[in-house]
Amino acid sequence: MLLGRFARGDETFYGRLKADGTVVRLDGGLDSEWANGRVYGPGEVRALAPCTPSKIVCVGLNHREHARELNHPLPEEPVLFLKPPSAVIGPGEEILLPPQSARVDYEAELALVIRRRAVNLDPERAAEYIFGYTAANDVTARDLQQKDGQWTRAKSFDTFCSLGPYIVAGPPPEQIKVALYLNGEQRQSACITDLIFGPAALVSFVSRVMTLEPGDVILTGTPAGVGPLRVGDRVEVEVGDVGRLVNVVATRRP
Amino acid sequence: MLLGRFARGDETFYGRLKADGTVVRLDGGLDSEWANGRVYGPGEVRALAPCTPSKIVCVGLNHREHARELNHPLPEEPVLFLKPPSAVIGPGEEILLPPQSARVDYEAELALVIRRRAVNLDPERAAEYIFGYTAANDVTARDLQQKDGQWTRAKSFDTFCSLGPYIVAGPPPEQIKVALYLNGEQRQSACITDLIFGPAALVSFVSRVMTLEPGDVILTGTPAGVGPLRVGDRVEVEVGDVGRLVNVVATRRP
Repeated sequence: MLLGRFARGDETFYGRLKADGTVVRLDGGLDSEWANGRVYGPGEVRALAPCTPSKIVCVGLNHREHARELNHPLPEEPVLFLKPPSAVIGPGEEILLPPQSARVDYEAELALVIRRRAVNLDPERAAEYIFGYTAANDVTARDLQQKDGQWTRAKSFDTFCSLGPYIVAGPPPEQIKVALYLNGEQRQSACITDLIFGPAALVSFVSRVMTLEPGDVILTGTPAGVGPLRVGDRVEVEVGDVGRLVNVVATRRP
Repeated sequence: MLLGRFARGDETFYGRLKADGTVVRLDGGLDSEWANGRVYGPGEVRALAPCTPSKIVCVGLNHREHARELNHPLPEEPVLFLKPPSAVIGPGEEILLPPQSARVDYEAELALVIRRRAVNLDPERAAEYIFGYTAANDVTARDLQQKDGQWTRAKSFDTFCSLGPYIVAGPPPEQIKVALYLNGEQRQSACITDLIFGPAALVSFVSRVMTLEPGDVILTGTPAGVGPLRVGDRVEVEVGDVGRLVNVVATRRP
């Protein structure tokens, strides 16, 4: 099942995307049963970011090849940082380059979407708490990341967390691929078997620190091949069968 | 005016605390006019954390004396990190020491509460966007902060962001004091004139990175004198006239 959030006029709602492009409106939440509602044609609704996280927990240096390209030793435990909900954009929205940074990078990532409240989970139970997965672009002001030492400012600008377009229900299979295309050229590609800490281990680890809520998102780290974005670039992230997450790059007004 | 959030049974609402201890229920939001409602006696309602932030933006090393005690050079720009909304507790709730850490510290701070949506503010306009101020305890697992390099995990455990008890409306005056008492003994005390970056400068700086929403909180950094918490400790933060924010320390179940 491909699940999304959609807008029609002032209304927003969850919906199921069917193979013919129509959208079945769903009533319910990520932690409940869904009731089918009205069916909309492809042009009648607009896809938004597919969930509304109360927090976005991110993991640094979690792909072996990416840690190597940055000359970092492999971490013993996941290194966490947060992006604020204000950074979230959906498919088709612009990524805005802020005047404070001279170097903003794309980072393709597998994003896990939490199904229900999770506290102190054992890794064996953690998969049940994953509603599904989607694609993310963990946009990063690389120069500010290096200047600050702390990664938060560099990762927290408005538009720096693109999510979508859809959620595939269930925990991600081990063989799915995370890829990024810049103006049509592939720049990142890895299987999530390259992850140092896999999805269930991450959900468990984070839940022992902070209570996870339905719709919260865990970004699992980017593969090798990160690089800069420039105004006018078209950047696409593809994770398994979630669809291509497409954003165009523009300038933030100062 | 002293504003708080209160619980009565399953209901939660904003209220104004009067000098006689009664609470006037208020309908409205931080960015709107208030309408007075029912009056409750002191025993009829329970004070909660005084706002419900969508994000908690924190500033590191922003008191000159604290930067000196840690042998850090004074930062040129504010160093930001985030605490998740799941870390918030209110007055009277327990701070829980997690099994992952052997050294959890208190950090008394002035907290700014945002009045309305704020983007790209000039410092001259920023004070208008401050609804008021309250007290915060930016609880920190010092050993994990050092181990991780990134401060997020160390600052993000459930119960690690105590806020309250009340909000004093308006931007904080320059002369107010931030103090902390551990089991009745004063351990931290500083005037906010010791801040490297003051309230308006911080609101402006953050708003140029991420859009601030009504009820969002900026923690302005802790003074010198941080130290460890142990099970059974009673820790109190006092900021100007907001009242004493009291929490007792207990153990988190693994």
